[in-house]
Amino acid sequence: MAKGSREVVTRNDVAQYAGVSTAVVSYVVNDGPRAVSPRTRDRVLEAIRVLGYRPNAAARALKVGSTRTFGLVMPDGGNPLYAELAKAVEKEAATRGYVVLQTNTDSDPAVEKRKISDLLARQVDGLILATPTGEPGATELAELNDSGIPVVALNRPVRGTTSICPEYRAGARLGVEHLIGHGHERIGLVMGIERSAWSPERELGWRDALVAAGLPEGPIARAEFSRQGGYDAGRQLLTTTNPPMPVKQAKVAKLLKATERPTAIFVSSDLQAVGVLRALHEAGLDVPGEMAVVAFDGTAESEFSWPPLSVVRQPLEAVAQKAVSRLLDEVDEPVEAFTYPTELVLRASCGCN
Amino acid sequence: MAKGSREVVTRNDVAQYAGVSTAVVSYVVNDGPRAVSPRTRDRVLEAIRVLGYRPNAAARALKVGSTRTFGLVMPDGGNPLYAELAKAVEKEAATRGYVVLQTNTDSDPAVEKRKISDLLARQVDGLILATPTGEPGATELAELNDSGIPVVALNRPVRGTTSICPEYRAGARLGVEHLIGHGHERIGLVMGIERSAWSPERELGWRDALVAAGLPEGPIARAEFSRQGGYDAGRQLLTTTNPPMPVKQAKVAKLLKATERPTAIFVSSDLQAVGVLRALHEAGLDVPGEMAVVAFDGTAESEFSWPPLSVVRQPLEAVAQKAVSRLLDEVDEPVEAFTYPTELVLRASCGCN
Repeated sequence: MAKGSREVVTRNDVAQYAGVSTAVVSYVVNDGPRAVSPRTRDRVLEAIRVLGYRPNAAARALKVGSTRTFGLVMPDGGNPLYAELAKAVEKEAATRGYVVLQTNTDSDPAVEKRKISDLLARQVDGLILATPTGEPGATELAELNDSGIPVVALNRPVRGTTSICPEYRAGARLGVEHLIGHGHERIGLVMGIERSAWSPERELGWRDALVAAGLPEGPIARAEFSRQGGYDAGRQLLTTTNPPMPVKQAKVAKLLKATERPTAIFVSSDLQAVGVLRALHEAGLDVPGEMAVVAFDGTAESEFSWPPLSVVRQPLEAVAQKAVSRLLDEVDEPVEAFTYPTELVLRASCGCN
Repeated sequence: MAKGSREVVTRNDVAQYAGVSTAVVSYVVNDGPRAVSPRTRDRVLEAIRVLGYRPNAAARALKVGSTRTFGLVMPDGGNPLYAELAKAVEKEAATRGYVVLQTNTDSDPAVEKRKISDLLARQVDGLILATPTGEPGATELAELNDSGIPVVALNRPVRGTTSICPEYRAGARLGVEHLIGHGHERIGLVMGIERSAWSPERELGWRDALVAAGLPEGPIARAEFSRQGGYDAGRQLLTTTNPPMPVKQAKVAKLLKATERPTAIFVSSDLQAVGVLRALHEAGLDVPGEMAVVAFDGTAESEFSWPPLSVVRQPLEAVAQKAVSRLLDEVDEPVEAFTYPTELVLRASCGCN
């Protein structure tokens, strides 16, 4: 038995001989999903010939019968942002003849891990992880890489994996600078709670804009990325009240700035902004007259809120297109980090119109 | 060759001998996805033995390796209603160890047909058609039935297929009766455009309530099931103005009722209601003071609109649960029509609170 086992030539042997990853061997054997350069392909075929490698035909047949499928792992398909992202991915995949298995994790790392394993077991041709909950440990990454299935992470960089992100920090700065342009000097922040150790890019962008304009930081309310979270955060920001009388000393005034009620709020997601608007309406505040609002995301829901939200729009289509391209097309670098610029969409909530 | 062909025993032969459908033969052979009663199972096994039927082992192996998957065909995953429905279906399927392939059709019958064929080719274990665009012709139904794959239609009855629907008509009536309870006598309707010949149940429910209360019909605006559609419809309803002076003759007054601006609007979907609210805000109307609104659906978006929408809530969880159960569990009747009651959720837009 031991002898028989030793004689089996594995994909790993071929990879070592040819000096490529096991994934590349798999692409050559299965004729996809990614293309391989002719030179690399020749090296792999030569290794297969020399070593006498015989890929498992049954497994291959099975795979051919069940593929042209991507797995898409999302934190919450009920969030319009992810619903729109999924739609964009599905549309892009369809142009290449692929369908998409969508699955939700409720941002639970354990659920996410189980769903990824499940999709791998189903032999999907590629895996798209939207906003993964954290950096997978070395073990999971090895499992993913060893599976030979291409993976891309969206919205959040993950070590060892290609990532495609909006320019969160530059985008947030753009939105806050627009509020500063409207004359606001006390700009609060509603910031989503990140479950990973990843740096809060949107918060950094908000701060960048304030520092560049020489303005003090307004109050920050942290909350879940949800309508309810935004509502709670909005109410919290409204409890910071203006001082009862003008403060003479400039230094004291500057120190007090952070506790004054802001005149504008930058919100880290559309969903939260909708909740913030409800809190402002309930408090009887005029938007944008008494409180201006700019949000990050730019889903269809933001256009029909009241007043219509001015937003920093995520480049969903570009992200979806790049994701599908990375899963299918030949690549020079196995791991790369891509970012796409956001776009300012001005409606009424900022004070324009 | 002809001889050999004639000797092949098909699943159809087994079905005829046992007096069951080909689908049932397939359930017995594949040990699922639906259970079969012991007595029927024995009849099928007897037929297989007598006729010497040999199911294609390769096809079966392939299927076993690629299954535990449902296909879900939706008109628009970007619509929060379908995003929430998909989430409910996925959650319910997961409890049974199944994953869901979601796909969008943009309500285009040709796209829908292509996507259904595609899912069948992928040998899904069951097909859920959410709001199918129309009654499939006899050919498609035969293809579906012959595939042996169980199918359920959601939100719309389809001849020859099990359907699971909310009680649209009774639900709409419930919502309009609530507006009547608030003292409204001129109640308009924003009605989604149905692409099939299926009767507009929500419109019938609106009329039921008005007739029962002896009230005239308010104006109707028909529009796409979208935020923009609702916005356009809302603006249209506002152009119907009140007559400049009291009309003395009751008969004339009644005839004029339909052209008067309504004091309340029943809207056939949340998405449209959000657009209607925007139109009302832009016209400077107080909601519910000058115009009350009740919508059909009850998605999360309705709770955070301004003012929060009173809604007739669809029983999404019950529908998802029944759909998965119909695809997996033993059934007595091959084709049934199920309806689930809706629920009135009262917030501010109707005049409550």
